[in-house]
Amino acid sequence: MTNTPVCVVGLGLIGGSLMRAAHAAGREVFGYNRSIEAVQAARADGFDATEHIDEALTRAADSEALIVLAVPVPALRPMLERIRKAAPDCPLTDVTSVKSCVADEVRAVGLLERFVGGHPMAGTAQSGWAAGDRRLFDGAPWVVSVDDHVDPHVWAMVMRLALDCGAVVVPARSDEHDAAAATISHLPHLLAEALAATAGEVPLAFALAAGSFRDGTRVAATAPDLVRAMCEANADQVLPVLDRTIDLLARARSALSAQKPLTDLVEAGHAARVRYERFGRPEIVTTAVGADNWRAELAAAGRAGGVIRSALPVLDSRE
Amino acid sequence: MTNTPVCVVGLGLIGGSLMRAAHAAGREVFGYNRSIEAVQAARADGFDATEHIDEALTRAADSEALIVLAVPVPALRPMLERIRKAAPDCPLTDVTSVKSCVADEVRAVGLLERFVGGHPMAGTAQSGWAAGDRRLFDGAPWVVSVDDHVDPHVWAMVMRLALDCGAVVVPARSDEHDAAAATISHLPHLLAEALAATAGEVPLAFALAAGSFRDGTRVAATAPDLVRAMCEANADQVLPVLDRTIDLLARARSALSAQKPLTDLVEAGHAARVRYERFGRPEIVTTAVGADNWRAELAAAGRAGGVIRSALPVLDSRE
Repeated sequence: MTNTPVCVVGLGLIGGSLMRAAHAAGREVFGYNRSIEAVQAARADGFDATEHIDEALTRAADSEALIVLAVPVPALRPMLERIRKAAPDCPLTDVTSVKSCVADEVRAVGLLERFVGGHPMAGTAQSGWAAGDRRLFDGAPWVVSVDDHVDPHVWAMVMRLALDCGAVVVPARSDEHDAAAATISHLPHLLAEALAATAGEVPLAFALAAGSFRDGTRVAATAPDLVRAMCEANADQVLPVLDRTIDLLARARSALSAQKPLTDLVEAGHAARVRYERFGRPEIVTTAVGADNWRAELAAAGRAGGVIRSALPVLDSRE
Repeated sequence: MTNTPVCVVGLGLIGGSLMRAAHAAGREVFGYNRSIEAVQAARADGFDATEHIDEALTRAADSEALIVLAVPVPALRPMLERIRKAAPDCPLTDVTSVKSCVADEVRAVGLLERFVGGHPMAGTAQSGWAAGDRRLFDGAPWVVSVDDHVDPHVWAMVMRLALDCGAVVVPARSDEHDAAAATISHLPHLLAEALAATAGEVPLAFALAAGSFRDGTRVAATAPDLVRAMCEANADQVLPVLDRTIDLLARARSALSAQKPLTDLVEAGHAARVRYERFGRPEIVTTAVGADNWRAELAAAGRAGGVIRSALPVLDSRE
């Protein structure tokens, strides 16, 4: 089971890092990328890559590989159509930052049964094969979806891949993941863009910028298309948290303008950050994948901060 | 002139780091702190500190030391009253993050003639003597005010102290400094607080938080009183940039809600961040402090990104 080969579709920052990490863990891994440049670069680095999607998918089907979708959201649908034709029985996961819409796409092409969504919460402002790093996932949370449909055996394969890549597994429902991702990933990107854009209009600002500005705008260096893609794809979840943030800022604005103290915002923000710093990561050890009620149990454990650090046992019987 | 002793009033993060840095540069430096604990800690580290303000100020008057105000804004007025009594002729500077209101306080007690405001743009989320670091200012911009009143000899003393501490000097008018500081320091703090507070309300958020959240909320760990003090003291300058940011976010919200692209915000933010990364720091070398029009010349150079990396010459004649 741990010898399941891995087929990485898309060799950008995440896919390329995953290929390196899985390889370093001793897994058989091969990959596809649309652009020949990335394929050549991957080969030059000693990896097994092709620019021919059918070649990669046929090999995946023959070897019953776990297919990892590591392409941008807009490229998902045509790729899923090809997988349905060439490798419909392969277990399937993804590494996309929005989970519900990916599950919807997978459902639409009829591949949901063998699909378990994933999202490694790691990245840099860089992109492309060359930016990849086999240590990118070290210690990072890697969400593995525990939606109602998921098959325990595919789930366990994705769990093992994430662990092999050095991540810790956070089990979560797709909808809960998307609400959290909107808050801790998409919203920070929008705030960074707004901060950078505002400062760009104040003449002396860049001359005086130091740590708080540099940190607060770091993710504004991310390629605009990536930021748009993740925020727009998760708009339903971004809207309420963006509203909440705008409301907090507008109240602070009113207080400042009335020469009243900023206590409400500042105390709430500080308290939340302190709670975050102290947030525990209890290890999930008691659940067997495939046991009665295993999905709800894992979702609850993930919500409480629980993480999987070494592979959970898998029951042979299916629910 | 470079042997001017330095009297540091307040031995917290900034004052304590300044004392260490000036000492490491070979300067004679002594200091005062209200709490005996910090004084004892400074002494234990080999520094010359007292908890008796009159002792420190008498020594400053006797040695014609440069007095550095490193106390919080609310403590400024009583301290300035004491300086007026005990050391009214000493050159005076400060390290406070808001410049116009400090100049107003100094003017109110009649000490403006010997005062040149300063602001080292460095800090951490820590505070207190123990958090100090003699390398805190290495390469950091240190604003030295070039307001209309400033005396060239005092200005040069403050410039040399900043350079001795490893900083680069950015000459700027107090009002322009405050507008920029609102944008690149106070606004990022408010955004970090709002982001942390919003995430604190979303159950799975902390469990999934990674780099963009950690960076985006780092300064929310700053002591709430410090954040309030600097934002509230600079409210006039914070309000317009906070309004601008809220407006940018509200427009993004409208676009998201209408399923329109986020292009405006994301492209503007990305472009500004890229400009910031490429922002040059030309060295200011041609101005002589005290020459005709030197203040306006330095203010213009600072606005254009110019920094002083080694001491400018000082004309002996006063304007």
